[in-house]
Amino acid sequence: MGNGYREMWKSLGLDLDAHDQLLQALPPTYGEVYLSQQDRPAAMEYFDFVINEIHGLRIQELQEHKASGGKVVGTFCVFVPEEIIRAAGGICIGLCSGIDMGAAQAEKVLPRNICPLIKSFMGFKLAKVCPYFESCDMVVGETTCDGKKKAFEILNDYVPVHVMETPQMKRERDMVLWREEIGDLVTGVEALTGGDVTADSLRQAIKEVNGKRRALLRLAELRKNNPSPISGKDGLLIEQIAMYDDVERFTLKVNELCDELEIRLKEGKGAHKPGAPRIIVTGTPMAVPNWKVAHIIESSGAIIVAEELCTGLRYFANTVPENGENIEEMLDLLGKRYLNINCACFTPNQGRMEDLLRLAEEYKADGIIHCSLTFCDPYAVEANRVEKILREKGIPLLKIETDYGQEDSGQLKTRIEAFLELIG
Amino acid sequence: MGNGYREMWKSLGLDLDAHDQLLQALPPTYGEVYLSQQDRPAAMEYFDFVINEIHGLRIQELQEHKASGGKVVGTFCVFVPEEIIRAAGGICIGLCSGIDMGAAQAEKVLPRNICPLIKSFMGFKLAKVCPYFESCDMVVGETTCDGKKKAFEILNDYVPVHVMETPQMKRERDMVLWREEIGDLVTGVEALTGGDVTADSLRQAIKEVNGKRRALLRLAELRKNNPSPISGKDGLLIEQIAMYDDVERFTLKVNELCDELEIRLKEGKGAHKPGAPRIIVTGTPMAVPNWKVAHIIESSGAIIVAEELCTGLRYFANTVPENGENIEEMLDLLGKRYLNINCACFTPNQGRMEDLLRLAEEYKADGIIHCSLTFCDPYAVEANRVEKILREKGIPLLKIETDYGQEDSGQLKTRIEAFLELIG
Repeated sequence: MGNGYREMWKSLGLDLDAHDQLLQALPPTYGEVYLSQQDRPAAMEYFDFVINEIHGLRIQELQEHKASGGKVVGTFCVFVPEEIIRAAGGICIGLCSGIDMGAAQAEKVLPRNICPLIKSFMGFKLAKVCPYFESCDMVVGETTCDGKKKAFEILNDYVPVHVMETPQMKRERDMVLWREEIGDLVTGVEALTGGDVTADSLRQAIKEVNGKRRALLRLAELRKNNPSPISGKDGLLIEQIAMYDDVERFTLKVNELCDELEIRLKEGKGAHKPGAPRIIVTGTPMAVPNWKVAHIIESSGAIIVAEELCTGLRYFANTVPENGENIEEMLDLLGKRYLNINCACFTPNQGRMEDLLRLAEEYKADGIIHCSLTFCDPYAVEANRVEKILREKGIPLLKIETDYGQEDSGQLKTRIEAFLELIG
Repeated sequence: MGNGYREMWKSLGLDLDAHDQLLQALPPTYGEVYLSQQDRPAAMEYFDFVINEIHGLRIQELQEHKASGGKVVGTFCVFVPEEIIRAAGGICIGLCSGIDMGAAQAEKVLPRNICPLIKSFMGFKLAKVCPYFESCDMVVGETTCDGKKKAFEILNDYVPVHVMETPQMKRERDMVLWREEIGDLVTGVEALTGGDVTADSLRQAIKEVNGKRRALLRLAELRKNNPSPISGKDGLLIEQIAMYDDVERFTLKVNELCDELEIRLKEGKGAHKPGAPRIIVTGTPMAVPNWKVAHIIESSGAIIVAEELCTGLRYFANTVPENGENIEEMLDLLGKRYLNINCACFTPNQGRMEDLLRLAEEYKADGIIHCSLTFCDPYAVEANRVEKILREKGIPLLKIETDYGQEDSGQLKTRIEAFLELIG
């Protein structure tokens, strides 16, 4: 990234020295993990560009939006309805980060033994190294896990946080509560942006975000082929970028990529060697630039065909029905769509078990790798349920727990290679 | 405990060898922590007896209740309304344990890095060493933390678990949801016991449980005196026993103790040396036989005057109004009483901050020790909020994080002594 953005970063209040260190941590990893891939689809160039400009062009766009009176809203979870933020004229940006920066700062306010994703976002805020965070006028939090729920109380000292209470079950009474939370978000976001969520603006936003989800679904469908026309690493990258890129441009670019992949499929071109084991990754989100496990899996000779993750199918597997006739109906449909996400925050979470069995079949997976961030109780404990159902169905499973550090890479590679050998 | 109970334990399906090991772990600790105290109130004899008979007489009582058709319901949280279980003819037993047993078994189904309380209950169940657990016909769980919420799904493989969805905020919509959960518990418990929760039986149960809470409150009030007439260790013990002892007998015995303490106060007899620093302990529950931190604090020369814990004031600080005219009104009042508990599961949890400031003043505390179990995100993260408010008010705070092991005792003693010196 050029130095032309330094003034912008400075004006955002970033700690420029710390920020330089962060930027230096990124490019070599990216080169090793991504740019070294052979015969990548040409349309991946756009996504490489986005990463190359991760703290540049997109931040500039956010600043331009803000300069013309617009607002930026940060989120940490696929439960926060982007449609509402867009309908009120805001831009919604996913703030989860997958890098271990500012941990020392974060540990001043958080316990040491906490999920690395939470420690990372708190560290980014306290160390002032994230231009996305510093661009946010408001953060919308949720109560999907204890760590985030409680950390948002602290984060609220530094940036206004609106917390949505996500229910822990999916019955009618939970839907009632969740629907009220949706209503409160409309009010909160309208107060922030000064724009009204109208039937027209909401209808438009639903269509746009559905468009993004459909493009991602189209890409996912293409990965059902054998050979898969795209690496799992590239798939993950696109799903990560979905969280913060411009919605319409991103949709266009994903569809362009899909057009290219369709041609490659006809030409019999795959992104991997014939016979590579087909893997589904499931578990906790892998936020940019957390490509560690995906890279180890694919550099061990397997191909990842789907991500049953929040940075994956959980984000785009369902669209919002577009037949809501008025704003209340649209919000009802929106609420139902979001409550339908099969996150481990729910008890029980049978829907995720059914998803995994269905995905294993649809994507012809040879095995599933359950990857949980350290100290993530919801997913680490639910791994036992996943293990139980997959064992019953004879689907091979490898369970791993890891953080954002690189110290365990060797050990993970050994375990993953052994697993692939077992199922190969 | 005599060997006369072996037949009973065997009939409960306990693993007798493992159970013997558990029993051997208890008595020496108890002797060292409790029986070594000088000039203890005579009425403590009853509570010593209860501990001595912890897997004997009380289990026999539960078995007799079951033999005559009664049911036993286990719980892990002060949010589960004991009144409803009693009103339906059941006996409610707190199952939380404060000892590290069966961890190897627990780790077969749970992640290694999880709260010791959760690991302990799962270990107790899998290792078949807890006669309370084996006496339970049903367990009532809740969703107060991620670890328990998800562990109950696994526990349900071994014993029927009815989960109550505890809300994460305290607004009207949360009360509506919680009130429906209360109604479901009534239905669930009635189905189990075959007894009806009637206006009369519920009124009676509310009175009885209120009686227990009032006795505990009376004891708490006596500890506001300087000198305090009873050690904090003894106070904690009584609060722990409150969770599983016979309600009416326990109430009687606590009141007898209070009578004695009132006499001792008139005689100027205190349970500690004059000028001992007065400490309030706050944080996560300390279940039997977890006396580690209390023992270290008091053997370092301080006196604990109150426990802002679930095994403490959170359990008995509020009673249920007794003026409900019909069953729906009574359940409303009950629901409100329980939702009023200031657990770190709520966001925000300002009520706990207010409680701590009020308690520090009322109990004339010289300092507060925040004690959190390892990997407990709700309390470990909320400790930051506690620190913030106490610093603003100039109240000294020591934050510690510990588990059920003894390995950190020396380090804890050093830190606690340093803290006491600082505030002394």
